[in-house]
Amino acid sequence: MNTATDQSITEIDGGITAVDGMRAAGLHAGIKKHKPDLALVAAPRRCPAAAVYTRNAVQAAPLHVTRRHLADGHAQAVVVVSGIANTCTGRQGLLDAEAMAALAADALGIDPADVIVASTGVIGPHLPMDRVAAGIRAAAAALSPAGGRDAAVAIMTTDTRPKEAAYRVALPSGTVVTVGGMAKGSGMIHPDMATMLAFLATDAPVAPGHLQEALRQAVDDTFNLITVDGDTSPNDMVAVLATGTAVGAALEPGSADWDAFVAGLTAACRSLARQIVADGEGATRTFAVRVTGAATRDDARRAARAVAASSLVKTAVYGRDANWGRVLTAAGASGAAMDPDRASLSMEHEGTSIPLFRDGAPLPVDEEAATRMLGMDGVTFVLDLGTGGDAGAVAWGCDLTEKYVQINAAYRT
Amino acid sequence: MNTATDQSITEIDGGITAVDGMRAAGLHAGIKKHKPDLALVAAPRRCPAAAVYTRNAVQAAPLHVTRRHLADGHAQAVVVVSGIANTCTGRQGLLDAEAMAALAADALGIDPADVIVASTGVIGPHLPMDRVAAGIRAAAAALSPAGGRDAAVAIMTTDTRPKEAAYRVALPSGTVVTVGGMAKGSGMIHPDMATMLAFLATDAPVAPGHLQEALRQAVDDTFNLITVDGDTSPNDMVAVLATGTAVGAALEPGSADWDAFVAGLTAACRSLARQIVADGEGATRTFAVRVTGAATRDDARRAARAVAASSLVKTAVYGRDANWGRVLTAAGASGAAMDPDRASLSMEHEGTSIPLFRDGAPLPVDEEAATRMLGMDGVTFVLDLGTGGDAGAVAWGCDLTEKYVQINAAYRT
Repeated sequence: MNTATDQSITEIDGGITAVDGMRAAGLHAGIKKHKPDLALVAAPRRCPAAAVYTRNAVQAAPLHVTRRHLADGHAQAVVVVSGIANTCTGRQGLLDAEAMAALAADALGIDPADVIVASTGVIGPHLPMDRVAAGIRAAAAALSPAGGRDAAVAIMTTDTRPKEAAYRVALPSGTVVTVGGMAKGSGMIHPDMATMLAFLATDAPVAPGHLQEALRQAVDDTFNLITVDGDTSPNDMVAVLATGTAVGAALEPGSADWDAFVAGLTAACRSLARQIVADGEGATRTFAVRVTGAATRDDARRAARAVAASSLVKTAVYGRDANWGRVLTAAGASGAAMDPDRASLSMEHEGTSIPLFRDGAPLPVDEEAATRMLGMDGVTFVLDLGTGGDAGAVAWGCDLTEKYVQINAAYRT
Repeated sequence: MNTATDQSITEIDGGITAVDGMRAAGLHAGIKKHKPDLALVAAPRRCPAAAVYTRNAVQAAPLHVTRRHLADGHAQAVVVVSGIANTCTGRQGLLDAEAMAALAADALGIDPADVIVASTGVIGPHLPMDRVAAGIRAAAAALSPAGGRDAAVAIMTTDTRPKEAAYRVALPSGTVVTVGGMAKGSGMIHPDMATMLAFLATDAPVAPGHLQEALRQAVDDTFNLITVDGDTSPNDMVAVLATGTAVGAALEPGSADWDAFVAGLTAACRSLARQIVADGEGATRTFAVRVTGAATRDDARRAARAVAASSLVKTAVYGRDANWGRVLTAAGASGAAMDPDRASLSMEHEGTSIPLFRDGAPLPVDEEAATRMLGMDGVTFVLDLGTGGDAGAVAWGCDLTEKYVQINAAYRT
């Protein structure tokens, strides 16, 4: 993202319905006891759509259905239930996911193959389809351009707050496009080539194949570089609908407009991804890991994710303990090429930097200042792997607290 | 390990000094405030020795020194300090590790190149070498055939109990050999091709190259399949001394005697490895993951370790919650080939089995019985990956509790 592109991207209020013509609804269908658990999102017309999915060998039933529905690169609606994952549910689970698409299509008067289906929650149980059916019909009747927030609330599980983001992008050619989206995720967060549930929309005129490429790029630099607990969900999915209602020529990769659009999509994904980390189960603080001096981009990503995922780094952040050896050690175990004798490490927050380690040896550290900095949200560990390479990456993580253990020891009970 | 071999292996009391001629001592040198922190072990003569080391790119200073000292395949003594890791300590750290070897050699009247050096503790600080020197001299004076326990206590850090194991092996040829050892480890346990600190001795007559091969095999099936928190230490090392004082011909790979010896060495390593898991930081219960039906042994190991390391599986065990979807999901994310539609999963404890999942679909589960079983130590998750392959592996893990977080949030302070 260059400076010119940055300046042309403006954060705006709202989420997925910030995009012109998008409507959404969220309500309580009865899958969970009391909280909203069903969301429906609809575009004004059938339009280009793309998605990326978890790489987990275990994949939720709705992912199989959605993959089939998006084979033609088009969709018009998204239906999501929360509380039950519809994962490891065998043939019945597939039938239930297909029924969700059919029910939504029927209520909206569209083709079932144009419906994206997703679910999130406990693995194993079957969906109470009578309640899901009634919920879908009610949600279709409630669809509204103001319903984005309700939808964002209805896809939550252990999340403590809804996650929305919307950006306006002024393309160099003069066209102004909007990207808006919502996401959920709080635990089982260690996305692999896809991530938790996130749904985005844009009015940018983009062909399906190009949309897929833009989404892949955006996800790779955002959702794929966050971690809460190192566990990769079988339900992860990020999908985007491109309504194309913005005035202007179709976007072509390689153009300045394309770059600006991808930057906007990436900004929306990054905002949602960081909201997921900030709402990590039991988390009190987030931190970033900026890796530089890596031999390859893959090494940089691997080392950054490994540090962000390390239980020992996460508990040290929680305890405000500048136990920097754990950062070096986690990177050293990541498999990324690293030269400890040339590596360096510092801690940064809002312009202040505390050097910790340089050229294979520790530096004198003002422990009080370090503890103070670690008490703040958003500290960045800046780690140069010392290989002389110029590849880098930034990953985001959160601290590990007693509350994470309590939440996950009691999840089903 | 076949049945014949199993029957020829007998567990006996003691640890590293259960092997004839081995002497050891452990005492408080002043690296920690109050607890024992320095151990010395000596063989009756210079003898074949082998070690495996962490694969972490960051390696503690003593590992560099030990690797050099073992280049000739021989050693006579081991000196260990606990409390300070002597890792990420630059040139001074290397000089300190070399000085430890020189001091031990001087006190024992042997060559410094025959001393194995190790350390464990906080990463970063330098060793207080005046105290270390005095401690080594005092330990040399205290060496005793009864000192194995003191040495095992002196290498502990967050460990709550010392870890020792000793086995007597009747080789098919009639020779009886002994294998004894000690280990430490409680956190930062996710060994990669080596493990936490463990030191073993045997009186078996084995040539250095063969000893290295036997150790690698034994470690691969034991220490390399345990995990406490997914973090791989830069100080991990397993070393073995083979005094050769047992009567009998030198052991040659491929012989029945060789297989029996490796089985005995593996039994000692397995006992120590499981003691480490049982003493995992904050752990209340251990569990095993037996993977079958894998396409390759590597896949089986990867899936088993991934399940044992999953924070969500570990918290579910803590909460006695038969949330089996987390087991499947962790295996699915491991990278191992897996066919969820043919996979099966059950939970076993002392002859009782509770089937949970078969052929892609959940089975009805008696939740009360499952909760009761999960309250017991040593439950085994039996997971068939459904690939039709016949490779398998067993990994060991422990639950994740609030106490793990408390221990590691406060480690240095």
